[in-house]
Amino acid sequence: MLISDLTHEAGDIFTAGYRLSQAENFWPAGTVFVTVVDPGVGTPRRSIVLKTRTGHYFVGPENGLLTLVAERDGIAGLREIDERVNRRPGSGESHTFHGRDVYGYTGARLAAGRISFEQVGPSLPPDSLVKLAYRQPTREGDRVTGLIPVLDIQFGNVWSNIPKALFDQLGVATGERVHVRIFRGDTLVDELEAPYARTFGQVPVGQPLVYVNSLMNLSLALNQGSFAAAHNIGFGLDWRIEIQRLPKP
Amino acid sequence: MLISDLTHEAGDIFTAGYRLSQAENFWPAGTVFVTVVDPGVGTPRRSIVLKTRTGHYFVGPENGLLTLVAERDGIAGLREIDERVNRRPGSGESHTFHGRDVYGYTGARLAAGRISFEQVGPSLPPDSLVKLAYRQPTREGDRVTGLIPVLDIQFGNVWSNIPKALFDQLGVATGERVHVRIFRGDTLVDELEAPYARTFGQVPVGQPLVYVNSLMNLSLALNQGSFAAAHNIGFGLDWRIEIQRLPKP
Amino acid sequence: MLISDLTHEAGDIFTAGYRLSQAENFWPAGTVFVTVVDPGVGTPRRSIVLKTRTGHYFVGPENGLLTLVAERDGIAGLREIDERVNRRPGSGESHTFHGRDVYGYTGARLAAGRISFEQVGPSLPPDSLVKLAYRQPTREGDRVTGLIPVLDIQFGNVWSNIPKALFDQLGVATGERVHVRIFRGDTLVDELEAPYARTFGQVPVGQPLVYVNSLMNLSLALNQGSFAAAHNIGFGLDWRIEIQRLPKP
Repeated sequence: MLISDLTHEAGDIFTAGYRLSQAENFWPAGTVFVTVVDPGVGTPRRSIVLKTRTGHYFVGPENGLLTLVAERDGIAGLREIDERVNRRPGSGESHTFHGRDVYGYTGARLAAGRISFEQVGPSLPPDSLVKLAYRQPTREGDRVTGLIPVLDIQFGNVWSNIPKALFDQLGVATGERVHVRIFRGDTLVDELEAPYARTFGQVPVGQPLVYVNSLMNLSLALNQGSFAAAHNIGFGLDWRIEIQRLPKP
Repeated sequence: MLISDLTHEAGDIFTAGYRLSQAENFWPAGTVFVTVVDPGVGTPRRSIVLKTRTGHYFVGPENGLLTLVAERDGIAGLREIDERVNRRPGSGESHTFHGRDVYGYTGARLAAGRISFEQVGPSLPPDSLVKLAYRQPTREGDRVTGLIPVLDIQFGNVWSNIPKALFDQLGVATGERVHVRIFRGDTLVDELEAPYARTFGQVPVGQPLVYVNSLMNLSLALNQGSFAAAHNIGFGLDWRIEIQRLPKP
Repeated sequence: MLISDLTHEAGDIFTAGYRLSQAENFWPAGTVFVTVVDPGVGTPRRSIVLKTRTGHYFVGPENGLLTLVAERDGIAGLREIDERVNRRPGSGESHTFHGRDVYGYTGARLAAGRISFEQVGPSLPPDSLVKLAYRQPTREGDRVTGLIPVLDIQFGNVWSNIPKALFDQLGVATGERVHVRIFRGDTLVDELEAPYARTFGQVPVGQPLVYVNSLMNLSLALNQGSFAAAHNIGFGLDWRIEIQRLPKP
């Protein structure tokens, strides 16, 4: 059995769920993910194990974190953790550390075959899974719109959830400039033109580009700089990005 | 054999020893801990391997780091590392990196069964182990006192070494407010009233609470905030915390 | 098979190559290192696998990163990755993430025995390997000179690439003071006298010392302080350090 830390740096539920959906595909069926981003620890919410149609298991608090993996992979089963039996012995008086006492414990035992999925606890209706509402990427005419699920923070790149396939409908050629607007809520935070480039090296150092990131979604960067820092861009459900094709001159 | 990094972030001897005692219980008997927090590297102090009565081994410089695990688990054996034989070949001229050349090397060979505990070096009297003096938690009347061994720094929570069992002697009910004083040395640094709560969600966002942490010790937090940052609280042997029951109105 | 993260913190090609050469020796023959420090991702440079005479494999972009390991260990073989076959299926449209799609994929398959070294792609002449030029350590009279390849950043120590064996030619005894000058390009950044000490504890807290680091190279530190922060020292190919023996009084 291999134990791996995916990340301890995603503190926001939607962002954590995005990173989780990004990482999940690289792990084989049967992998158990313990997913604890839990600002509501100790307050009423269900503790669950989700099994996707791809055969991955997710153990954690039910707070919307699993929205994206459930939508993409489908729900093969959903069970509520019976904390009377699936809890670290002797931890009954600890109310603030379910990650260790319930989720880590249950995930480890599930991964090790000590308990089956059925022994997690009672089955729940798949459509009862708590989900977060979020902006789906859309196209209107010469413009695509999406949200900023995360920053690729080590480099300062600004990612969107707009797929290349949707953007391709605009017919923008590599090297062509596009118009970009970034909003937080209703406030226009940033507006610029930048070339649609295949690689960072196609623009001068310090200059912006629009490119396709490793998830095949449209993104913004500065070549060898931090777009997010230079333009003061954040991320999350209230950040919106629009990319518009420029009219032919 | 599994190799795991516990932490590289505990730079203070007492705090590192506290984190070590916190983590040790989750590892099986036979685990070898290489414990190098070593501001005195290269100066005279013994290099030791401690075996506890729980069957855990600790390899490192003898500087007080093992005080808490030795007190809690008992000493089954103590040996001085014979650095003439237990040292990475060719490292004899390196005087500042015992962590790699002596402790990592000896710990790895002990864990892999290349050497036995007896082959570490000569036996030492258990009561010769160097220990740090520290404030034990106490109760006087309607008040319990302890120290702040560490901050739960990712969240900014302030931990004490006051066990729930000792605090329970005050008879404070969940939801009841208590009086808290924090001292650094003899200086009163902070004073407040806060409810004794089971979970963070029982107080409004940004408000303080007294709660039982994952080690079953009394702690202070702000719901979704950093108590340590907001109140400028540190940790270590000279930080003291008092929790007092309020008189019935 | 063991998978380990060496570091994600070396962003500069020369520094990353230095850290790589430092770590390599501790891994057995047959180890596959995936080495991606790749500011030129997506621009023309070869993707290679280097096999050293010590039996280590290095997979990554060819940008000078492997200069030091190739010089020290010798080149047993060099092959260009044939990206038509050695690329994660379905990743053909992703141009900015060769680390995942080509290097991680090829390294994993090579380590797992799915492909042989020969199946990486066509053989290249060993002397065609791209190398970085850098200042070799030298001695002139009573003075040794080298560069600052990295900072030992957790402690703030300033490392040089001057070997103890070269410095020993000056005949400086332990405890004797030496004259140190640090340049960035042609600018003198720092100048001081400090004792040549065996251990940090031989100078008072906060005071500087010259010592031999864990790689047996000359280094600068403050006992329990950060020399790099206090003296504003950086690292890389344009940083130079001189250590001079003082005349006998």
